[in-house]
Amino acid sequence: VQLQDLIASVLDRDRRGVARCISLLERGDPRTLQILDLLVPHGGKARVVGVTGAPGTGKSTLVGALAEHYRAAGHRVGIIAVDPSSPFSGGALLGDRIRMARSSADPEVFIRSMASRDELGGLAPAAYGALQVLDAAGYDRILVETVGAGQAEVDIVQLAHTTLVVLVPGLGDDVQVLKAGIMEIADVYVINKAEREGTQRLQAAVGSLLDLAEHTGHRPGVVRTVASEGRGITELAQAVAEHWTHLDRPGRRQPRLLRQAELMLRKALQAEALRSVLDPLRRDGGLERLLDEIVQRRAHPLRVAQDLLEAHRAGARSSALPG
Amino acid sequence: VQLQDLIASVLDRDRRGVARCISLLERGDPRTLQILDLLVPHGGKARVVGVTGAPGTGKSTLVGALAEHYRAAGHRVGIIAVDPSSPFSGGALLGDRIRMARSSADPEVFIRSMASRDELGGLAPAAYGALQVLDAAGYDRILVETVGAGQAEVDIVQLAHTTLVVLVPGLGDDVQVLKAGIMEIADVYVINKAEREGTQRLQAAVGSLLDLAEHTGHRPGVVRTVASEGRGITELAQAVAEHWTHLDRPGRRQPRLLRQAELMLRKALQAEALRSVLDPLRRDGGLERLLDEIVQRRAHPLRVAQDLLEAHRAGARSSALPG
Repeated sequence: VQLQDLIASVLDRDRRGVARCISLLERGDPRTLQILDLLVPHGGKARVVGVTGAPGTGKSTLVGALAEHYRAAGHRVGIIAVDPSSPFSGGALLGDRIRMARSSADPEVFIRSMASRDELGGLAPAAYGALQVLDAAGYDRILVETVGAGQAEVDIVQLAHTTLVVLVPGLGDDVQVLKAGIMEIADVYVINKAEREGTQRLQAAVGSLLDLAEHTGHRPGVVRTVASEGRGITELAQAVAEHWTHLDRPGRRQPRLLRQAELMLRKALQAEALRSVLDPLRRDGGLERLLDEIVQRRAHPLRVAQDLLEAHRAGARSSALPG
Repeated sequence: VQLQDLIASVLDRDRRGVARCISLLERGDPRTLQILDLLVPHGGKARVVGVTGAPGTGKSTLVGALAEHYRAAGHRVGIIAVDPSSPFSGGALLGDRIRMARSSADPEVFIRSMASRDELGGLAPAAYGALQVLDAAGYDRILVETVGAGQAEVDIVQLAHTTLVVLVPGLGDDVQVLKAGIMEIADVYVINKAEREGTQRLQAAVGSLLDLAEHTGHRPGVVRTVASEGRGITELAQAVAEHWTHLDRPGRRQPRLLRQAELMLRKALQAEALRSVLDPLRRDGGLERLLDEIVQRRAHPLRVAQDLLEAHRAGARSSALPG
């Protein structure tokens, strides 16, 4: 496919074009930067909601219910679901998503799964890319869902304008609340499965946590939902909208967007530095030799990293290798 | 202090020298690489055990009990405890550790806390550095404890020769087991607080997980402990020793050490690339301008990252900035 045709199909809101474009970015296609050069200026209209929480909190159901709510209000909805990938679990979780995707016959909802194996730091840039494609394709509400397990996932929910942290009663409450506190990323806390015993106690625990914290400006809301029955979803959408109102006040939105830009720039720098330094070394067998030096304790990783970057800078990598 | 004196004090096993040296590395002192150049050749004798698990699983108590076991067997024990740092929780957790450190009057046990706020990727290199200092100072058993929350923590336990994943019954068992499976880092599973109801069920769940996974070589052991009463610690030490025996077989240890070397090299490359590209930009205000370009959608982070790295390579950073 010609690049211009692909870009045109995305801007024309063609589903297959959108899917193909995201796939190219995910694979790290050599045209990645060009694609983004052409798409990014068309974006910036979407409101992005990040949804995170431990496995078993019902995030997918909640995302589905919120998507339905936005559809009913006339929005077009994009969903990016980041799955933990593992030989143990990955298949099953992805399978669920695929069934969910198939059951969604609504042409104005676009669902995309991404695996979260992130050894080279490529996940955040790939998710960023998918977000730009959906935004340019006119999906004006985008939901980004991740299991709140690792740093890579946390980085991704930080792409959102508003981040929901989903908790459920009876799932090691103190641990959940502590972890949410540690992450400090929630704009809205959702207590899902709120028909269960312990909801009151969990809500009180979240309240105490929020009392402890210093909030400059927006105090995170706490909303109870039973996503499987659609209960509390209107209130949740309301809490999200209130956060947007908060962001739209002078001086609120810009710092958040700058923080996001810096985070994404760092991720991109890291991924690109690794790629440009290690790829050639891997090809010519130099990496193996260096790693062996490290294992033998004739070198250490911090020194090798510095030497590699200096040599790379000097454009004379191969002549300046230690060992 | 002169560098030579500091290094000599570490090799002489002087506790204050060890503490000072770790502090310099943690702060990213300009002499970091020299310090490691001088210390790393003296190390390689320690056996390193990583201990990870959710908050509330009793990791610290377990680490304390295992340290006592090793002391009784005549070893010198180093402990590196990585704490989640947060305005909410950091203080309290660190406080516990400090009390634990004070209560340990044994001069042959060295305990060091490190905060885990890791925005610039400096945690893994700092923990690596602390490990080298303790190793060079003759601590021949080193325990590295982290809350198994984020990627940064997972990276750190991967510095170990043997990794323990600590679970407890009744703490969202399926979630714990699923997450442990996703991480795929356990050499030994520890079911702590095994006097509790649900121990049998949790052990069965771990067993099923292990049956599902393909194990090339070493099948992770599962050990029950009640660390607060010292029960099961001998068996745990035995399971760790068995894993070492496994590693000592031909062809077992080298791949693991190579993997660790590569992981640490990547972390060091990432941290150093960020530092060398962003630090000068931050000083001259160029970073702010670039981030603003990104927020305005006149540039995107992947393009900016590539431009910055190319300019950096060409040694002509300031003349090649976009915008």
